[in-house]
Amino acid sequence: MPQNIYDDDEFYAGYQQLPRSVGGLHAAPEWPVVHELLPDLAGAKILDLGCGFGAFDRWAARQGAEQIIAVDVSSNMLKRARELTDNSLIDYRQGDIGALDIPESEFDLIYSALAIHYIEDLHTLCQTMRAKLREGGQLIATLEHPIFSAPRHDQWQTDAQGNKIWPLDGYLREGARTRSWFTDGVIKYHRSTETYVNTLLDNSFRLNRLIEWGPDEHQLAQHPEWACERDRPMFMILAATAVL
Amino acid sequence: MPQNIYDDDEFYAGYQQLPRSVGGLHAAPEWPVVHELLPDLAGAKILDLGCGFGAFDRWAARQGAEQIIAVDVSSNMLKRARELTDNSLIDYRQGDIGALDIPESEFDLIYSALAIHYIEDLHTLCQTMRAKLREGGQLIATLEHPIFSAPRHDQWQTDAQGNKIWPLDGYLREGARTRSWFTDGVIKYHRSTETYVNTLLDNSFRLNRLIEWGPDEHQLAQHPEWACERDRPMFMILAATAVL
Repeated sequence: MPQNIYDDDEFYAGYQQLPRSVGGLHAAPEWPVVHELLPDLAGAKILDLGCGFGAFDRWAARQGAEQIIAVDVSSNMLKRARELTDNSLIDYRQGDIGALDIPESEFDLIYSALAIHYIEDLHTLCQTMRAKLREGGQLIATLEHPIFSAPRHDQWQTDAQGNKIWPLDGYLREGARTRSWFTDGVIKYHRSTETYVNTLLDNSFRLNRLIEWGPDEHQLAQHPEWACERDRPMFMILAATAVL
Repeated sequence: MPQNIYDDDEFYAGYQQLPRSVGGLHAAPEWPVVHELLPDLAGAKILDLGCGFGAFDRWAARQGAEQIIAVDVSSNMLKRARELTDNSLIDYRQGDIGALDIPESEFDLIYSALAIHYIEDLHTLCQTMRAKLREGGQLIATLEHPIFSAPRHDQWQTDAQGNKIWPLDGYLREGARTRSWFTDGVIKYHRSTETYVNTLLDNSFRLNRLIEWGPDEHQLAQHPEWACERDRPMFMILAATAVL
Protein backbone atom coordinates (compact mmCIF):
# COMPACT_ATOMS: atom_id res chain seq x y z
CA MET A 1 0.00 0.00 0.00
CA PRO A 2 1.18 3.53 -0.70
CA GLN A 3 1.13 6.23 1.94
CA ASN A 4 -2.53 6.97 2.67
CA ILE A 5 -2.12 10.59 3.63
CA TYR A 6 -5.80 11.40 3.13
CA ASP A 7 -6.55 9.26 6.18
CA ASP A 8 -4.11 11.29 8.30
CA ASP A 9 -6.27 13.44 10.60
CA GLU A 10 -4.13 16.57 10.43
CA PHE A 11 -3.82 16.35 6.63
CA TYR A 12 -7.51 15.63 6.15
CA ALA A 13 -8.57 18.52 8.39
CA GLY A 14 -6.64 20.88 6.12
CA TYR A 15 -7.49 19.22 2.83
CA GLN A 16 -11.24 19.25 3.38
CA GLN A 17 -11.12 23.06 3.58
CA LEU A 18 -9.49 23.52 0.17
CA PRO A 19 -11.72 25.40 -2.29
CA ARG A 20 -12.00 22.28 -4.48
CA SER A 21 -13.00 20.20 -1.46
CA VAL A 22 -15.74 22.64 -0.52
CA GLY A 23 -16.82 23.83 -3.95
CA GLY A 24 -16.34 20.71 -6.07
CA LEU A 25 -15.46 20.66 -9.74
CA HIS A 26 -16.20 24.31 -10.42
CA ALA A 27 -13.82 25.42 -7.67
CA ALA A 28 -10.94 23.56 -9.37
CA PRO A 29 -9.21 26.05 -11.66
CA GLU A 30 -8.26 23.37 -14.20
CA TRP A 31 -11.82 22.02 -14.50
CA PRO A 32 -12.84 24.06 -17.61
CA VAL A 33 -9.89 22.63 -19.54
CA VAL A 34 -10.54 19.10 -18.30
CA HIS A 35 -14.22 19.46 -19.17
CA GLU A 36 -13.35 20.33 -22.77
CA LEU A 37 -11.19 17.24 -23.12
CA LEU A 38 -13.85 14.84 -21.90
CA PRO A 39 -15.78 12.71 -24.40
CA ASP A 40 -19.57 12.54 -24.40
CA LEU A 41 -20.47 10.65 -21.23
CA ALA A 42 -24.01 9.56 -22.20
CA GLY A 43 -24.08 5.79 -21.85
CA ALA A 44 -20.41 5.64 -20.86
CA LYS A 45 -18.75 3.16 -18.51
CA ILE A 46 -16.40 5.19 -16.34
CA LEU A 47 -13.59 4.25 -13.98
CA ASP A 48 -12.45 7.05 -11.67
CA LEU A 49 -9.03 6.45 -10.11
CA GLY A 50 -8.59 8.54 -6.99
CA CYS A 51 -12.18 9.73 -6.73
CA GLY A 52 -11.83 11.72 -3.50
CA PHE A 53 -15.19 13.20 -2.51
CA GLY A 54 -16.79 11.96 -5.74
CA ALA A 55 -17.55 15.38 -7.27
CA PHE A 56 -16.65 14.18 -10.75
CA ASP A 57 -18.66 11.00 -10.37
CA ARG A 58 -21.85 12.78 -9.36
CA TRP A 59 -21.39 15.17 -12.28
CA ALA A 60 -20.74 12.26 -14.67
CA ALA A 61 -23.90 10.54 -13.45
CA ARG A 62 -25.86 13.68 -14.34
CA GLN A 63 -24.34 13.56 -17.85
CA GLY A 64 -25.97 10.17 -18.38
CA ALA A 65 -23.10 7.78 -17.67
CA GLU A 66 -24.22 4.15 -17.56
CA GLN A 67 -21.80 2.82 -14.98
CA ILE A 68 -19.33 4.56 -12.66
CA ILE A 69 -16.78 2.77 -10.52
CA ALA A 70 -14.96 5.22 -8.27
CA VAL A 71 -11.87 4.03 -6.41
CA ASP A 72 -9.96 5.73 -3.63
CA VAL A 73 -7.51 4.54 -1.00
CA SER A 74 -8.88 6.82 1.70
CA SER A 75 -11.76 5.77 3.92
CA ASN A 76 -12.13 9.43 4.98
CA MET A 77 -12.70 10.44 1.39
CA LEU A 78 -15.02 7.56 0.57
CA LYS A 79 -17.13 8.11 3.67
CA ARG A 80 -17.71 11.73 2.70
CA ALA A 81 -18.27 10.80 -0.97
CA ARG A 82 -21.02 8.35 0.03
CA GLU A 83 -22.63 10.93 2.32
CA LEU A 84 -22.74 13.41 -0.55
CA THR A 85 -24.07 10.94 -3.12
CA ASP A 86 -27.70 10.04 -3.70
CA ASN A 87 -27.27 7.91 -6.79
CA SER A 88 -26.91 4.15 -6.79
CA LEU A 89 -25.20 4.26 -10.18
CA ILE A 90 -21.94 5.30 -8.52
CA ASP A 91 -20.10 2.37 -7.01
CA TYR A 92 -17.50 3.68 -4.54
CA ARG A 93 -14.78 1.20 -3.67
CA GLN A 94 -11.75 1.39 -1.44
CA GLY A 95 -8.53 0.36 -3.12
CA ASP A 96 -4.96 1.20 -4.05
CA ILE A 97 -5.01 2.49 -7.63
CA GLY A 98 -1.36 1.48 -7.96
CA ALA A 99 -2.38 -2.16 -7.49
CA LEU A 100 -5.89 -2.01 -8.88
CA ASP A 101 -7.98 -5.05 -8.14
CA ILE A 102 -11.38 -4.87 -9.84
CA PRO A 103 -12.92 -7.48 -12.14
CA GLU A 104 -14.65 -5.00 -14.50
CA SER A 105 -13.06 -3.90 -17.77
CA GLU A 106 -14.00 -2.45 -21.21
CA PHE A 107 -14.39 1.04 -19.79
CA ASP A 108 -15.03 3.95 -22.15
CA LEU A 109 -13.24 6.44 -19.91
CA ILE A 110 -10.68 6.38 -17.15
CA TYR A 111 -10.60 9.66 -15.26
CA SER A 112 -7.94 10.39 -12.68
CA ALA A 113 -7.61 13.76 -10.98
CA LEU A 114 -4.43 14.64 -9.11
CA ALA A 115 -3.85 11.07 -7.95
CA ILE A 116 -1.20 9.52 -10.20
CA HIS A 117 1.68 11.44 -8.62
CA TYR A 118 1.06 9.47 -5.41
CA ILE A 119 1.76 6.20 -7.23
CA GLU A 120 5.35 4.95 -7.37
CA ASP A 121 5.11 2.49 -10.28
CA LEU A 122 3.83 4.41 -13.30
CA HIS A 123 4.49 1.64 -15.81
CA THR A 124 2.28 -0.87 -13.99
CA LEU A 125 -0.41 1.75 -13.55
CA CYS A 126 -0.41 2.61 -17.28
CA GLN A 127 -0.47 -1.08 -18.18
CA THR A 128 -3.44 -1.61 -15.87
CA MET A 129 -5.29 1.44 -17.17
CA ARG A 130 -4.82 0.24 -20.74
CA ALA A 131 -6.10 -3.22 -19.83
CA LYS A 132 -9.22 -1.73 -18.26
CA LEU A 133 -10.13 0.38 -21.32
CA ARG A 134 -11.84 -0.80 -24.45
CA GLU A 135 -9.98 -0.07 -27.68
CA GLY A 136 -10.71 3.57 -28.45
CA GLY A 137 -11.45 4.31 -24.81
CA GLN A 138 -10.11 7.53 -23.32
CA LEU A 139 -7.82 8.41 -20.47
CA ILE A 140 -8.02 11.89 -18.98
CA ALA A 141 -5.53 12.41 -16.19
CA THR A 142 -4.49 15.49 -14.24
CA LEU A 143 -1.13 15.49 -12.47
CA GLU A 144 1.13 17.73 -10.53
CA HIS A 145 3.32 19.25 -13.24
CA PRO A 146 6.90 17.93 -13.23
CA ILE A 147 8.18 21.51 -12.91
CA PHE A 148 6.14 21.79 -9.71
CA SER A 149 7.12 18.41 -8.31
CA ALA A 150 10.83 18.46 -9.17
CA PRO A 151 12.59 20.89 -6.82
CA ARG A 152 14.15 20.15 -3.48
CA HIS A 153 12.47 23.31 -2.17
CA ASP A 154 8.97 23.82 -3.53
CA GLN A 155 8.52 27.46 -2.54
CA TRP A 156 8.87 30.64 -4.57
CA GLN A 157 12.07 32.57 -3.93
CA THR A 158 13.19 36.12 -4.63
CA ASP A 159 16.42 36.49 -6.56
CA ALA A 160 19.10 39.17 -6.21
CA GLN A 161 17.23 41.42 -8.68
CA GLY A 162 14.03 41.14 -6.65
CA ASN A 163 12.32 38.82 -9.13
CA LYS A 164 10.05 36.03 -7.96
CA ILE A 165 11.55 32.77 -9.25
CA TRP A 166 10.76 29.09 -8.96
CA PRO A 167 13.96 27.37 -7.75
CA LEU A 168 14.07 24.50 -10.21
CA ASP A 169 16.47 21.63 -9.70
CA GLY A 170 16.35 17.84 -9.88
CA TYR A 171 14.05 17.79 -12.91
CA LEU A 172 15.48 14.55 -14.32
CA ARG A 173 16.11 13.05 -10.86
CA GLU A 174 12.91 11.10 -10.53
CA GLY A 175 11.54 9.57 -7.36
CA ALA A 176 9.91 10.40 -4.06
CA ARG A 177 9.62 13.96 -2.82
CA THR A 178 8.63 14.54 0.80
CA ARG A 179 6.55 17.68 1.14
CA SER A 180 4.90 19.73 3.83
CA TRP A 181 1.29 20.15 2.75
CA PHE A 182 -1.19 20.50 5.63
CA THR A 183 1.18 18.16 7.51
CA ASP A 184 4.79 17.08 7.23
CA GLY A 185 5.94 14.00 5.39
CA VAL A 186 3.53 13.95 2.45
CA ILE A 187 5.16 11.69 -0.15
CA LYS A 188 4.66 12.35 -3.85
CA TYR A 189 6.54 10.90 -6.81
CA HIS A 190 8.27 13.20 -9.21
CA ARG A 191 8.58 12.13 -12.85
CA SER A 192 9.60 14.06 -15.93
CA THR A 193 7.21 14.88 -18.76
CA GLU A 194 9.24 12.45 -20.87
CA THR A 195 8.42 9.64 -18.48
CA TYR A 196 4.71 10.44 -18.31
CA VAL A 197 4.36 10.70 -22.08
CA ASN A 198 6.58 7.80 -23.11
CA THR A 199 5.17 5.43 -20.48
CA LEU A 200 1.71 6.04 -21.94
CA LEU A 201 3.01 5.50 -25.48
CA ASP A 202 4.80 2.31 -24.36
CA ASN A 203 1.54 0.93 -23.02
CA SER A 204 -0.58 1.28 -26.16
CA PHE A 205 -1.91 4.75 -25.63
CA ARG A 206 -1.93 7.44 -28.32
CA LEU A 207 -1.42 10.94 -26.97
CA ASN A 208 -4.22 13.35 -27.96
CA ARG A 209 -3.41 16.35 -25.82
CA LEU A 210 -0.88 17.61 -23.32
CA ILE A 211 -1.93 20.65 -21.31
CA GLU A 212 0.21 22.71 -18.98
CA TRP A 213 -2.45 24.54 -17.08
CA GLY A 214 -2.46 28.28 -16.54
CA PRO A 215 -5.34 30.66 -15.89
CA ASP A 216 -7.16 32.31 -18.80
CA GLU A 217 -7.88 36.05 -18.78
CA HIS A 218 -11.29 35.64 -17.20
CA GLN A 219 -9.93 33.49 -14.38
CA LEU A 220 -7.04 35.87 -13.83
CA ALA A 221 -9.42 38.82 -13.45
CA GLN A 222 -11.23 36.93 -10.70
CA HIS A 223 -8.11 35.37 -9.17
CA PRO A 224 -5.08 37.63 -9.68
CA GLU A 225 -3.19 35.37 -7.24
CA TRP A 226 -3.16 32.68 -9.94
CA ALA A 227 -0.79 34.75 -12.14
CA CYS A 228 2.19 32.82 -10.76
CA GLU A 229 0.85 29.72 -12.50
CA ARG A 230 1.92 31.34 -15.75
CA ASP A 231 5.46 31.46 -14.41
CA ARG A 232 5.45 27.89 -13.12
CA PRO A 233 2.47 25.68 -14.01
CA MET A 234 1.29 23.43 -11.20
CA PHE A 235 -0.91 21.08 -13.21
CA MET A 236 -0.40 18.93 -16.28
CA ILE A 237 -3.32 17.28 -18.05
CA LEU A 238 -2.90 14.31 -20.38
CA ALA A 239 -5.54 13.03 -22.78
CA ALA A 240 -4.87 9.72 -24.48
CA THR A 241 -6.71 7.03 -26.41
CA ALA A 242 -6.30 3.29 -25.90
CA VAL A 243 -5.03 1.76 -29.14
CA LEU A 244 -4.05 -1.73 -30.29
CA MET B 1 13.18 36.79 -42.78
CA PRO B 2 14.00 35.89 -39.19
CA GLN B 3 17.11 37.17 -37.46
CA ASN B 4 20.07 35.51 -39.19
CA ILE B 5 22.42 35.46 -36.23
CA TYR B 6 24.69 32.80 -37.75
CA ASP B 7 25.79 35.39 -40.31
CA ASP B 8 26.77 37.81 -37.54
CA ASP B 9 30.59 37.84 -37.47
CA GLU B 10 30.98 37.96 -33.70
CA PHE B 11 28.39 35.23 -33.15
CA TYR B 12 29.83 33.03 -35.88
CA ALA B 13 33.38 33.39 -34.57
CA GLY B 14 32.19 32.00 -31.23
CA TYR B 15 29.79 29.41 -32.59
CA GLN B 16 32.30 27.78 -34.91
CA GLN B 17 34.46 26.91 -31.89
CA LEU B 18 31.71 25.00 -30.05
CA PRO B 19 32.56 21.30 -29.58
CA ARG B 20 29.68 20.32 -31.90
CA SER B 21 30.92 22.75 -34.56
CA VAL B 22 34.42 21.28 -34.44
CA GLY B 23 33.64 17.63 -33.66
CA GLY B 24 30.37 17.13 -35.54
CA LEU B 25 27.59 14.75 -34.52
CA HIS B 26 29.62 12.77 -32.01
CA ALA B 27 30.53 15.92 -30.10
CA ALA B 28 26.83 16.70 -29.59
CA PRO B 29 25.80 15.15 -26.26
CA GLU B 30 22.24 14.44 -27.42
CA TRP B 31 23.35 12.62 -30.60
CA PRO B 32 23.21 9.04 -29.18
CA VAL B 33 19.55 9.56 -28.26
CA VAL B 34 18.73 11.18 -31.61
CA HIS B 35 20.52 8.37 -33.43
CA GLU B 36 18.35 5.78 -31.71
CA LEU B 37 15.18 7.58 -32.79
CA LEU B 38 16.13 7.75 -36.46
CA PRO B 39 14.54 5.33 -38.94
CA ASP B 40 16.64 3.29 -41.37
CA LEU B 41 18.05 5.82 -43.83
CA ALA B 42 18.90 3.42 -46.68
CA GLY B 43 17.09 4.76 -49.74
CA ALA B 44 15.48 7.57 -47.77
CA LYS B 45 14.57 11.03 -49.06
CA ILE B 46 15.65 13.46 -46.34
CA LEU B 47 14.94 17.12 -45.70
CA ASP B 48 17.22 18.78 -43.13
CA LEU B 49 15.84 22.04 -41.76
CA GLY B 50 18.63 24.14 -40.28
CA CYS B 51 21.51 22.03 -41.55
CA GLY B 52 24.34 24.20 -40.23
CA PHE B 53 27.71 22.71 -41.23
CA GLY B 54 25.99 19.62 -42.72
CA ALA B 55 27.41 17.05 -40.29
CA PHE B 56 24.11 15.15 -40.19
CA ASP B 57 23.75 15.24 -43.96
CA ARG B 58 27.20 13.78 -44.64
CA TRP B 59 26.47 11.08 -42.07
CA ALA B 60 23.06 10.36 -43.62
CA ALA B 61 24.66 10.08 -47.07
CA ARG B 62 26.99 7.41 -45.67
CA GLN B 63 23.92 5.51 -44.36
CA GLY B 64 22.67 5.17 -47.92
CA ALA B 65 20.13 7.98 -48.16
CA GLU B 66 18.86 8.48 -51.70
CA GLN B 67 18.29 12.24 -51.63
CA ILE B 68 19.22 14.91 -49.11
CA ILE B 69 18.05 18.52 -49.27
CA ALA B 70 19.70 20.59 -46.56
CA VAL B 71 18.40 24.08 -45.88
CA ASP B 72 19.90 26.83 -43.78
CA VAL B 73 19.41 30.57 -43.59
CA SER B 74 23.09 31.30 -43.01
CA SER B 75 25.52 31.76 -45.88
CA ASN B 76 28.39 31.36 -43.39
CA MET B 77 27.11 27.92 -42.42
CA LEU B 78 26.36 26.82 -45.98
CA LYS B 79 29.76 27.94 -47.26
CA ARG B 80 31.51 25.84 -44.64
CA ALA B 81 29.10 22.92 -45.20
CA ARG B 82 29.93 22.89 -48.90
CA GLU B 83 33.66 23.05 -48.18
CA LEU B 84 33.38 20.03 -45.91
CA THR B 85 31.23 17.99 -48.29
CA ASP B 86 32.47 15.80 -51.12
CA ASN B 87 29.17 14.20 -52.07
CA SER B 88 26.91 15.47 -54.82
CA LEU B 89 23.93 13.71 -53.23
CA ILE B 90 23.62 16.51 -50.70
CA ASP B 91 21.88 19.56 -52.07
CA TYR B 92 22.59 22.55 -49.83
CA ARG B 93 20.16 25.45 -50.24
CA GLN B 94 19.87 28.81 -48.58
CA GLY B 95 16.43 29.55 -47.22
CA ASP B 96 14.28 30.53 -44.26
CA ILE B 97 12.85 27.32 -42.78
CA GLY B 98 10.00 29.36 -41.32
CA ALA B 99 8.86 30.22 -44.88
CA LEU B 100 10.12 27.15 -46.68
CA ASP B 101 10.10 27.43 -50.44
CA ILE B 102 11.15 24.19 -52.12
CA PRO B 103 9.20 22.26 -54.77
CA GLU B 104 10.14 18.77 -53.54
CA SER B 105 7.87 16.75 -51.26
CA GLU B 106 7.12 13.14 -50.20
CA PHE B 107 10.13 13.05 -47.90
CA ASP B 108 10.68 10.01 -45.67
CA LEU B 109 12.37 12.04 -42.95
CA ILE B 110 12.52 15.63 -41.84
CA TYR B 111 15.41 16.23 -39.49
CA SER B 112 15.83 19.51 -37.65
CA ALA B 113 18.53 20.06 -35.05
CA LEU B 114 18.30 23.03 -32.69
CA ALA B 115 16.71 25.27 -35.30
CA ILE B 116 12.97 25.40 -34.61
CA HIS B 117 13.31 27.68 -31.58
CA TYR B 118 14.53 30.42 -33.95
CA ILE B 119 11.21 30.31 -35.84
CA GLU B 120 8.38 32.52 -34.65
CA ASP B 121 5.42 30.82 -36.31
CA LEU B 122 5.39 27.20 -35.16
CA HIS B 123 1.96 26.39 -36.59
CA THR B 124 2.96 27.31 -40.14
CA LEU B 125 6.23 25.42 -39.76
CA CYS B 126 4.45 22.25 -38.58
CA GLN B 127 1.90 22.57 -41.39
CA THR B 128 4.72 22.89 -43.92
CA MET B 129 6.67 19.98 -42.47
CA ARG B 130 3.59 17.77 -42.62
CA ALA B 131 2.97 18.78 -46.24
CA LYS B 132 6.55 17.88 -47.16
CA LEU B 133 6.39 14.37 -45.65
CA ARG B 134 4.82 11.32 -47.18
CA GLU B 135 2.21 9.60 -45.02
CA GLY B 136 4.17 7.55 -42.49
CA GLY B 137 7.21 9.79 -42.86
CA GLN B 138 9.10 10.77 -39.74
CA LEU B 139 9.98 14.02 -38.06
CA ILE B 140 12.92 14.09 -35.65
CA ALA B 141 13.44 17.52 -34.13
CA THR B 142 15.71 18.73 -31.36
CA LEU B 143 14.86 21.96 -29.57
CA GLU B 144 15.93 24.08 -26.71
CA HIS B 145 13.87 22.74 -23.82
CA PRO B 146 11.09 25.09 -22.69
CA ILE B 147 12.52 25.01 -19.16
CA PHE B 148 15.77 26.32 -20.60
CA SER B 149 14.20 28.93 -22.85
CA ALA B 150 11.56 30.29 -20.46
CA PRO B 151 13.31 32.40 -17.82
CA ARG B 152 14.02 36.09 -17.92
CA HIS B 153 17.53 35.29 -16.63
CA ASP B 154 19.00 32.15 -18.15
CA GLN B 155 21.87 31.65 -15.71
CA TRP B 156 22.19 29.35 -12.71
CA GLN B 157 21.78 31.06 -9.36
CA THR B 158 22.67 30.12 -5.80
CA ASP B 159 19.84 30.27 -3.29
CA ALA B 160 19.97 31.24 0.39
CA GLN B 161 20.78 27.63 1.37
CA GLY B 162 23.71 27.56 -1.07
CA ASN B 163 21.92 25.32 -3.59
CA LYS B 164 22.40 25.79 -7.29
CA ILE B 165 18.98 26.54 -8.78
CA TRP B 166 17.59 27.38 -12.19
CA PRO B 167 15.53 30.58 -11.78
CA LEU B 168 12.40 29.53 -13.62
CA ASP B 169 9.75 32.06 -14.50
CA GLY B 170 7.63 32.94 -17.51
CA TYR B 171 7.07 29.31 -18.52
CA LEU B 172 3.62 29.93 -20.01
CA ARG B 173 4.54 33.41 -21.28
CA GLU B 174 5.50 32.46 -24.81
CA GLY B 175 7.36 34.64 -27.25
CA ALA B 176 10.75 36.09 -28.05
CA ARG B 177 13.63 35.86 -25.60
CA THR B 178 16.70 38.01 -26.25
CA ARG B 179 19.84 36.23 -25.08
CA SER B 180 23.53 36.85 -24.86
CA TRP B 181 25.20 33.90 -26.56
CA PHE B 182 28.55 34.72 -28.19
CA THR B 183 27.04 38.13 -28.85
CA ASP B 184 24.19 40.22 -27.46
CA GLY B 185 20.73 40.29 -28.96
CA VAL B 186 20.31 36.67 -30.03
CA ILE B 187 16.56 36.16 -30.46
CA LYS B 188 14.99 32.80 -29.72
CA TYR B 189 11.30 31.93 -29.33
CA HIS B 190 10.13 30.33 -26.13
CA ARG B 191 7.17 27.97 -26.28
CA SER B 192 5.78 25.55 -23.72
CA THR B 193 5.91 21.79 -24.14
CA GLU B 194 2.13 21.95 -24.52
CA THR B 195 2.49 24.18 -27.56
CA TYR B 196 5.18 22.04 -29.20
CA VAL B 197 3.25 18.80 -28.68
CA ASN B 198 -0.25 20.05 -29.48
CA THR B 199 0.85 22.01 -32.56
CA LEU B 200 2.30 18.80 -33.98
CA LEU B 201 -0.89 16.88 -33.10
CA ASP B 202 -3.01 19.64 -34.68
CA ASN B 203 -1.08 19.31 -37.93
CA SER B 204 -1.55 15.58 -38.51
CA PHE B 205 1.44 14.26 -36.64
CA ARG B 206 1.31 11.37 -34.19
CA LEU B 207 3.76 11.72 -31.31
CA ASN B 208 6.09 8.72 -30.97
CA ARG B 209 8.58 9.98 -28.42
CA LEU B 210 9.31 12.98 -26.26
CA ILE B 211 12.81 13.12 -24.78
CA GLU B 212 14.11 15.54 -22.20
CA TRP B 213 17.80 15.04 -22.61
CA GLY B 214 20.17 14.40 -19.75
CA PRO B 215 23.55 12.64 -19.71
CA ASP B 216 23.73 8.89 -19.12
CA GLU B 217 26.21 7.42 -16.60
CA HIS B 218 28.89 6.90 -19.23
CA GLN B 219 28.63 10.49 -20.47
CA LEU B 220 28.62 11.82 -16.94
CA ALA B 221 31.84 9.96 -16.12
CA GLN B 222 33.51 11.66 -19.08
CA HIS B 223 31.78 15.03 -18.63
CA PRO B 224 30.97 15.65 -14.95
CA GLU B 225 30.13 19.25 -15.91
CA TRP B 226 26.99 17.92 -17.63
CA ALA B 227 25.44 16.90 -14.28
CA CYS B 228 23.50 20.19 -14.18
CA GLU B 229 21.51 18.97 -17.20
CA ARG B 230 19.81 16.55 -14.81
CA ASP B 231 18.66 19.52 -12.77
CA ARG B 232 17.48 21.54 -15.78
CA PRO B 233 17.44 19.81 -19.16
CA MET B 234 18.58 22.04 -22.03
CA PHE B 235 17.35 19.91 -24.94
CA MET B 236 14.02 18.40 -25.90
CA ILE B 237 13.73 15.88 -28.71
CA LEU B 238 10.45 15.12 -30.47
CA ALA B 239 9.83 12.15 -32.74
CA ALA B 240 6.58 12.12 -34.69
CA THR B 241 4.99 10.36 -37.65
CA ALA B 242 3.01 12.04 -40.41
CA VAL B 243 -0.53 10.64 -40.40
CA LEU B 244 -3.70 11.26 -42.38
